[in-house]
Amino acid sequence: MPDKHLPDIQSLTDNRNIPLDRAGIKGLRWPITVLDRKKGRQTTVATVNMYVNLPHNFRGTHLSRFVEVLNEYSDCEWIDRTGDILMTLRENLDADEAHMEIEFPYFIEKEAPVTKLTSLMSYTCLFTASYKKSEDIIMSIAVPVITLCPCSKEIADYGAHNQRCIVTVQVRYSDFVWIEEIIDLVESSASGDLYSILKRPDEKYITENIFDHPMFVEDIVREVARKLDSMERITWYTVEADSQESIHNHNAYARVEKKK
Amino acid sequence: MPDKHLPDIQSLTDNRNIPLDRAGIKGLRWPITVLDRKKGRQTTVATVNMYVNLPHNFRGTHLSRFVEVLNEYSDCEWIDRTGDILMTLRENLDADEAHMEIEFPYFIEKEAPVTKLTSLMSYTCLFTASYKKSEDIIMSIAVPVITLCPCSKEIADYGAHNQRCIVTVQVRYSDFVWIEEIIDLVESSASGDLYSILKRPDEKYITENIFDHPMFVEDIVREVARKLDSMERITWYTVEADSQESIHNHNAYARVEKKK
Amino acid sequence: MPDKHLPDIQSLTDNRNIPLDRAGIKGLRWPITVLDRKKGRQTTVATVNMYVNLPHNFRGTHLSRFVEVLNEYSDCEWIDRTGDILMTLRENLDADEAHMEIEFPYFIEKEAPVTKLTSLMSYTCLFTASYKKSEDIIMSIAVPVITLCPCSKEIADYGAHNQRCIVTVQVRYSDFVWIEEIIDLVESSASGDLYSILKRPDEKYITENIFDHPMFVEDIVREVARKLDSMERITWYTVEADSQESIHNHNAYARVEKKK
Amino acid sequence: MPDKHLPDIQSLTDNRNIPLDRAGIKGLRWPITVLDRKKGRQTTVATVNMYVNLPHNFRGTHLSRFVEVLNEYSDCEWIDRTGDILMTLRENLDADEAHMEIEFPYFIEKEAPVTKLTSLMSYTCLFTASYKKSEDIIMSIAVPVITLCPCSKEIADYGAHNQRCIVTVQVRYSDFVWIEEIIDLVESSASGDLYSILKRPDEKYITENIFDHPMFVEDIVREVARKLDSMERITWYTVEADSQESIHNHNAYARVEKKK
Repeated sequence: MPDKHLPDIQSLTDNRNIPLDRAGIKGLRWPITVLDRKKGRQTTVATVNMYVNLPHNFRGTHLSRFVEVLNEYSDCEWIDRTGDILMTLRENLDADEAHMEIEFPYFIEKEAPVTKLTSLMSYTCLFTASYKKSEDIIMSIAVPVITLCPCSKEIADYGAHNQRCIVTVQVRYSDFVWIEEIIDLVESSASGDLYSILKRPDEKYITENIFDHPMFVEDIVREVARKLDSMERITWYTVEADSQESIHNHNAYARVEKKK
Repeated sequence: MPDKHLPDIQSLTDNRNIPLDRAGIKGLRWPITVLDRKKGRQTTVATVNMYVNLPHNFRGTHLSRFVEVLNEYSDCEWIDRTGDILMTLRENLDADEAHMEIEFPYFIEKEAPVTKLTSLMSYTCLFTASYKKSEDIIMSIAVPVITLCPCSKEIADYGAHNQRCIVTVQVRYSDFVWIEEIIDLVESSASGDLYSILKRPDEKYITENIFDHPMFVEDIVREVARKLDSMERITWYTVEADSQESIHNHNAYARVEKKK
Repeated sequence: MPDKHLPDIQSLTDNRNIPLDRAGIKGLRWPITVLDRKKGRQTTVATVNMYVNLPHNFRGTHLSRFVEVLNEYSDCEWIDRTGDILMTLRENLDADEAHMEIEFPYFIEKEAPVTKLTSLMSYTCLFTASYKKSEDIIMSIAVPVITLCPCSKEIADYGAHNQRCIVTVQVRYSDFVWIEEIIDLVESSASGDLYSILKRPDEKYITENIFDHPMFVEDIVREVARKLDSMERITWYTVEADSQESIHNHNAYARVEKKK
Repeated sequence: MPDKHLPDIQSLTDNRNIPLDRAGIKGLRWPITVLDRKKGRQTTVATVNMYVNLPHNFRGTHLSRFVEVLNEYSDCEWIDRTGDILMTLRENLDADEAHMEIEFPYFIEKEAPVTKLTSLMSYTCLFTASYKKSEDIIMSIAVPVITLCPCSKEIADYGAHNQRCIVTVQVRYSDFVWIEEIIDLVESSASGDLYSILKRPDEKYITENIFDHPMFVEDIVREVARKLDSMERITWYTVEADSQESIHNHNAYARVEKKK
């Protein structure tokens, strides 16, 4: 092996006595396969970050080993084997702690509310997995919905301003949760939800339906929180709503965090 | 001058016989002063790109000279002296052609429609200035407005979906045009316009007003085009509308270009 | 069909006498399958824009039909059937002209130069397809490479600054061109190319190799242009290099365009 | 006041018994004046987020009041009066807690190392100010520097790969700290630092100097941490280095956090 003849600078001793929380790689694009409740699996493209901790006496970490671990698990179905990957990272990098962030668009075939025409909607998912004494996984999903302003509706003689709003939910769970469960939960908690294809009967239904369900960002966050409270598998969550106000050049925002 | 003793690699001869359209710098952040119709001048922060053409027989351009030209004109009020800057670029870089792109947020104090409370609204401006046989300046302004969907209003028994929409206008002109003129023109051509501060009487007014003026992206683009057609100083334009549809996860878009 | 009972506002007559160049949708994320020279096909995720022209007498276009066309071609292998899709857009939207922009990451298994370890590299591709009297397709590929500064190498007693540089090539062609051909052409025209996994013997090789091949952005652009000149299938091209200079907080940039 | 006649929906009682951590506005662009160690003050453009907590029994917050507070303090020199602003937010929004995030580019006139030519360098600053029982301010500064890889230098017969690296430092402090102090501290802890204008003697100096100071991201993070450890005013910090590796299409990353 030619490696043997070249010095390994990263493994040199460091004397500054400063252990690092994280050392690793960021921003690697990578094709992955994800568990899909309806179809079994879907392929998508992720952006991956991977880190380990670095004890005070090592000078550097070995970046190539992170990508080698990804290669080793290239056939796996996410997020099923996250625990195995964290263990492999710890072993291969001689580290106690390992961290992984994996973000990807996830697609769901969704039916229009009246015509029942189907098309694909995309959602942005982020899994944050850590091993630090024990395993810790956070699933984060960004779901676009509609907010229709209750104040605008109440004070105006007709109409109400409404807009796209991104609701981001992070959860820790004691038992498996489908991405689809969180999406359904959020989409049923807003003034209305979004579609890729809508025909006129669908648009009529949605327009009237959002007018019948005016909600502030504060309302949506509380509604999602109330439903997460009633899911026993959820042990911790944050809910954020970021509404791209049509009447302002800035967004309305609300957030709640809860450990159950 | 210590420069004299170091070889000038950029000035070496190139034998590939390939002249380059552009060589220069991109992505430099720079504080600037801009002409302001009401206050005389305002300070803001720009992102600057600068290029010259490179004759086939020169190997490279001298990047430091671009920034030196910016330094030389650091006290100038934009976009007044663009022509001088292009001339200086041509001289200092030994080039026939010079190009400059300068993008910045521009602030206007705007009154709420009913309460007349004032606050700052921001707009993104981009000036593209070129000298290539003659001077050519394009002013581009992105103005956020509201679109309320005429189809949604017509087919629904009540309500109508609406959203923030970015209208971008590019103009060439034969005589000076204020940034404010283009902004006014666009803001009066949409379902409604945006504000930083709105009290309830303002929100009531806007909500009803946008419902009274439903417009597709196609309508806004045509309305802006119609007004630009009637401005004699405008010799060429493009108008784009990019509407962040509240009921979809993608945008609606329309565009027109016209040389008068 | 319930559609029949609801008015079709988009089909109303418009009297402003302003035809629009483009009306359509922007920013739709969509999973696609792309032709792969080695593996036959690969799946990835695209961002899609689609437009048609809009004659002066129609008020608006029908956004849902764009997504229906995408659904209809969901099983196709890109970019093979672009022409069919443009024809379907023209028919379904009653338009003379149709346009499509489809951007996606593309993955190639690449061997490290010495150890021959393989891993995936990603490249950003953009296809712009138009029908306007005749079909016109532009393939654009962004390839990250290394630039090592010839000036820095020459004037310093040792070392030379180097950095990641994004080379973007756009081509029109008379006969099929693989994405891989353009990538190979660019990667062989820079100071060096990038990898996902490098072991120490690879890193030693690359470090010395880039030092042996110092290139300005101007050099890379000319080298790529020279090779494109010699490919008969290429009928038009632009080449851009955007180098994230390690010694500056702005980029060095060069560009050339040529119609053969 | 016309407000009086319109119902105040936000002030309605909410029965879901869910207090919110944050409700407010995001993404407002705003011109500001910042304290400058050398010139006294400089004007720049910020992006501002502002929030308060929302007790369980209130339905919503009043977005316009956030912008009114900004207007009230429009003449102030940041970050001097952050405490006053947080107090005003708490009062005007009837809240116990208030939060503010304010991000802006900051410019410093910097001398080239040999020719002493001066030009402007920009740095991205973010102040996060909270009142939650007591005031808490975090100053965050992103400083671009150069990393030259120690492994690459050691194993290669000549040359070494190097690249732009963003070092982000967050600090809490017991006594005033200048933005300039953190920037100086970081720029002196890397393989080298960046400039807007460099002449050949400067480039020669920097090229050789970075070759003489090879550093991993881990080295830079530890070096910055060591210096922050010795500043008594600093009570807590995080240091991150994100290096845009020239030989990879992903970044190298390291991070440390410490409460003193």
